[in-house]
Amino acid sequence: MEKSTTALAHPNIAFIKFWGLKDETNRIPSNGSISMNIGCLSTKTTVTPDPNLEKDTLTLNGVSVRGAGLTRVRQFMDRLRQMAEGQSFVHIESENNFPIGAGVASSASGFAALALAGTSALGLELSERELSGLARFGSGSACRSIPGGFVEWVTEPHSGNTYAKSIAAADHWNLVDLIAILSEQHKPVGSEAGMREAASSPLQEARTRDAKRRLDLCRQAILNRDFEALAAVTELDSNMMHAVMMTSEPPLFYWHPHSLAIMKAVKEWQQEGLAVTYTLDAGPNVHVIATQAAMGQALSRLRQFPFVMDVLKGIPAGPARLIKGQS
Amino acid sequence: MEKSTTALAHPNIAFIKFWGLKDETNRIPSNGSISMNIGCLSTKTTVTPDPNLEKDTLTLNGVSVRGAGLTRVRQFMDRLRQMAEGQSFVHIESENNFPIGAGVASSASGFAALALAGTSALGLELSERELSGLARFGSGSACRSIPGGFVEWVTEPHSGNTYAKSIAAADHWNLVDLIAILSEQHKPVGSEAGMREAASSPLQEARTRDAKRRLDLCRQAILNRDFEALAAVTELDSNMMHAVMMTSEPPLFYWHPHSLAIMKAVKEWQQEGLAVTYTLDAGPNVHVIATQAAMGQALSRLRQFPFVMDVLKGIPAGPARLIKGQS
Repeated sequence: MEKSTTALAHPNIAFIKFWGLKDETNRIPSNGSISMNIGCLSTKTTVTPDPNLEKDTLTLNGVSVRGAGLTRVRQFMDRLRQMAEGQSFVHIESENNFPIGAGVASSASGFAALALAGTSALGLELSERELSGLARFGSGSACRSIPGGFVEWVTEPHSGNTYAKSIAAADHWNLVDLIAILSEQHKPVGSEAGMREAASSPLQEARTRDAKRRLDLCRQAILNRDFEALAAVTELDSNMMHAVMMTSEPPLFYWHPHSLAIMKAVKEWQQEGLAVTYTLDAGPNVHVIATQAAMGQALSRLRQFPFVMDVLKGIPAGPARLIKGQS
Repeated sequence: MEKSTTALAHPNIAFIKFWGLKDETNRIPSNGSISMNIGCLSTKTTVTPDPNLEKDTLTLNGVSVRGAGLTRVRQFMDRLRQMAEGQSFVHIESENNFPIGAGVASSASGFAALALAGTSALGLELSERELSGLARFGSGSACRSIPGGFVEWVTEPHSGNTYAKSIAAADHWNLVDLIAILSEQHKPVGSEAGMREAASSPLQEARTRDAKRRLDLCRQAILNRDFEALAAVTELDSNMMHAVMMTSEPPLFYWHPHSLAIMKAVKEWQQEGLAVTYTLDAGPNVHVIATQAAMGQALSRLRQFPFVMDVLKGIPAGPARLIKGQS
């Protein structure tokens, strides 16, 4: 057994969503996106090269993974091996401290941690930008879990280079992400499969064409710590992504009736003056973003819903990082 | 008291929705629409000219109406008086046999019945086309409650004339509209006010640009009695309208969590082979359209939801008609 490398990465919650690729081969997104890394939640991944292996192995939370999940990870490792000197197959052990497959982006933190641990284990030294660009081949939004804090995924217009970069550090704004867990079931259609349908919605083109405007509004709201502006554009963008999903062929409804109940409650709480907003990824869980001042109220109200199984609490977090070097 | 005239009209349920005007003054819709008149449900309106009146009066289900509702009806009657010889103000008595303001288009049947009874009471004789074009000034979708059966609201490209016409008679296809009533409360934002916001959605232009395609699909599905094709385009169009509503400024959510629960159940029933589809107007109630063969199953399943207060049953119905001439 060779020396192992361990990396940790956080999931992220997007205020402006990624949904659809305009170039599937090169994984260029249809529109830019902006997110916040979610601290307290993390994926820890250990990669151990083993010259005796004939293929990569994967355990997730201690359970051996086979099938499509394993294939996806092996293809990602093949890409790393093409770049590296070390050609060994590897053991991958990954642990999430949060439920997977239910709207918390486990594939984002998972592939961010794997990109970092995997390149390091194979002797590659990449810049943050290169690492971010690489992580997107595992899962698009994984590129946003590489830099720290508040992050924007950009595509350079001329070079086509696409990667995420920090637009503000984690300590720039002490927001809280209260994730109301409605279901720990795996979602019926995963994000990667779902977004292949995006172009079949008659609304997707309008959504992406309007993206620059929303990105500008969101970036400014973050830089100015303007919660009201952030709330307006975050909800609009979430609603627009789900509008595209629901009008795709076949239609995708990630919302659960209870998701809608929480969204409507959030709108009522706003009327009372509480600084809260909502956003939903490709799953039923509702991310209720709140200021520190509003957090206590929001948390206790969310817990009062009988159908809320749990509320996870995240704060803006730093970049993906090695937590145990090759020893 | 002068002689009175009574007309009856049915509400209609749109498979392809009207949402937004491209010319508010002339009330030209942003896109065409297709609907079915809903029999068993009706509005009966009696108009009685009275030379001693100084203003029109209105009772709705026996209750005297004042405020915005009365103003809207008076403005409509002013339009009729401008066209007519008789200049009397009138007593209007209107009765619905279904709950108003909760997603069943009471304004459609209401203004269709008023257009017919009102013009007749004032001595006007209009063609169906003229009557339909007139009714839209009361409420857009009222123009579709004038002709019988399956109806399309068209706008002539050169003249700009806009009116509804029958594309198939009521007995062409014996569909059933099972209206799951979730709430008899008035909706927070009425359709006329809500659709003034339509243009503020970044998705409305794409929705209207794609309308001809959906209209063609829907018209063909009706003419061919192709339920599967009707279901696909009906759900898509309903989802697209609600997508625009939810992304308007401010956002409008007419769906209730229970509406979404029924929509999801309908999708599951389809998987079992049941010929059902759903559509929602600007309100929480879900219209479950079914074939005669599927009706029994659909009805009993809808009634099993504890939150379904009632299920109204409608069948394709004829045109607006006078039920008591000037005697």
